[in-house]
Amino acid sequence: MVVSARTRANFIPTGPLAVSMGRNLYFVGTAGSGKSTMVYAFQLWLNSQGLDSVTVNLDPGGESLPYSPDLDVRDYVTLEEIMTEQGLGPNGAQVAALDMVAMNAKELADVLEKFETNYFLIDTPGQIELFTFRSSGPVVIDAFGREDSALVYLNDPGIVKSPSGFISSVLLSATVQFRHGLPFISVLSKADLLAEEDLERIVKWSLDPFALYESLFEEAATPKTLLDVEFLKSMELIGVYRRVHPVSSEITFGFEEIYNQVQQVFQGGEDLSKD
Amino acid sequence: MVVSARTRANFIPTGPLAVSMGRNLYFVGTAGSGKSTMVYAFQLWLNSQGLDSVTVNLDPGGESLPYSPDLDVRDYVTLEEIMTEQGLGPNGAQVAALDMVAMNAKELADVLEKFETNYFLIDTPGQIELFTFRSSGPVVIDAFGREDSALVYLNDPGIVKSPSGFISSVLLSATVQFRHGLPFISVLSKADLLAEEDLERIVKWSLDPFALYESLFEEAATPKTLLDVEFLKSMELIGVYRRVHPVSSEITFGFEEIYNQVQQVFQGGEDLSKD
Repeated sequence: MVVSARTRANFIPTGPLAVSMGRNLYFVGTAGSGKSTMVYAFQLWLNSQGLDSVTVNLDPGGESLPYSPDLDVRDYVTLEEIMTEQGLGPNGAQVAALDMVAMNAKELADVLEKFETNYFLIDTPGQIELFTFRSSGPVVIDAFGREDSALVYLNDPGIVKSPSGFISSVLLSATVQFRHGLPFISVLSKADLLAEEDLERIVKWSLDPFALYESLFEEAATPKTLLDVEFLKSMELIGVYRRVHPVSSEITFGFEEIYNQVQQVFQGGEDLSKD
Repeated sequence: MVVSARTRANFIPTGPLAVSMGRNLYFVGTAGSGKSTMVYAFQLWLNSQGLDSVTVNLDPGGESLPYSPDLDVRDYVTLEEIMTEQGLGPNGAQVAALDMVAMNAKELADVLEKFETNYFLIDTPGQIELFTFRSSGPVVIDAFGREDSALVYLNDPGIVKSPSGFISSVLLSATVQFRHGLPFISVLSKADLLAEEDLERIVKWSLDPFALYESLFEEAATPKTLLDVEFLKSMELIGVYRRVHPVSSEITFGFEEIYNQVQQVFQGGEDLSKD
């Protein structure tokens, strides 16, 4: 993998001997859940708290990003190149591109090691399943180091607004957790798009499986209402069913809470803001 | 939506008054799990049993399909057109293309109604999350008619080979079930790629949550081993954890069993092969 001039210009290494002390936060969620916007907004918020962060774009098909990534896989590989060069369609190219990213994960990690920062904010590919089910996702996580890593899972407000959509999203987050085996924080993305009562209801569901079960039962008399409340309770018990934290990247709301959650996830580690 | 000449030529309608009696089988699974190949192989198998079927491709980004779909959304919309015309990248174009399919779902359903067949074998978009989490998937399922519909979920052998991968796949299938609310059949795809002992172990896991729990515990002492066996049992209880049926489209293995499963799903309906 050749580091292009543009890539080099983006880097602000702190010297070849500096060791990365940052924590890796992977922003994951379905396409359109607001990952890139949240990476941008969270970086601004961290800045406002005097905390440094480095942004990483892992999506070879990422289009106009709201931020300028410090490390950008598109400098190495883009979907359009792969489609042209390998004669692949968009589906095949997405898989091939992420495989190429994984093959070069060690080199990317070497680049990241040169930064001295508090947080690496890592924007994952648009399609959550590429990062979750292809082997490339775990390969990248391993190369970047599993220690001091966590997932920030974005629940799409349009999906979790309905009880069955909420359950689907919880199950998907559980899938992601089992696949990656990292601590995780559940975020309700784009909270500003929700009416106050919808917002409250969703948070209530995330705190109380019985409330969700009741709403599910009211939703429609379809087979999905056969869902056992015991099942929801057991998801809660093993820790995959948990409180969602509303966030809005538009009106910069909820980031302090996310930051607190990050600190809790890394409990035992020091709060970097107190350095 | 304009039906192109090529599309018309593909159709073999049985007359404007014919009513569709077919059952809709949606083939879903992660990218690369073998959906298109299975649609093709299953159609051949049904033919060999004297059963007629109609193939439907719902993937606007589908590349070289092994079969020639009787109804093909690519005749209406392709990713490349959308990328060019709307100036979108591959991610945005995939979402926009499927939204266009959903907007025209009624017209597609009208076309399907003209066929008189036993089964509609419906090949879903490469990325499972597009069909599952965007509203377009449910919109299409509604337009095609929920009655006499079922999901055929393809487990990717490369993923379910490990205990944690197996659980991820079960959870993903549960996600899909809750989202779509349709009966479903769990398939172990590309079984010919697995060694005999791997195949047996995977089937055993799908029958016995305790066996899976044991294997999971042996896999690695990571946080995922905190998974409660009670959780697996409750997944079994509510019916989302169930036997996987090995299939190979390469060596045409397992289709009779899938066919039997389909008949069981539609229990109460007559076995079309006995017509």
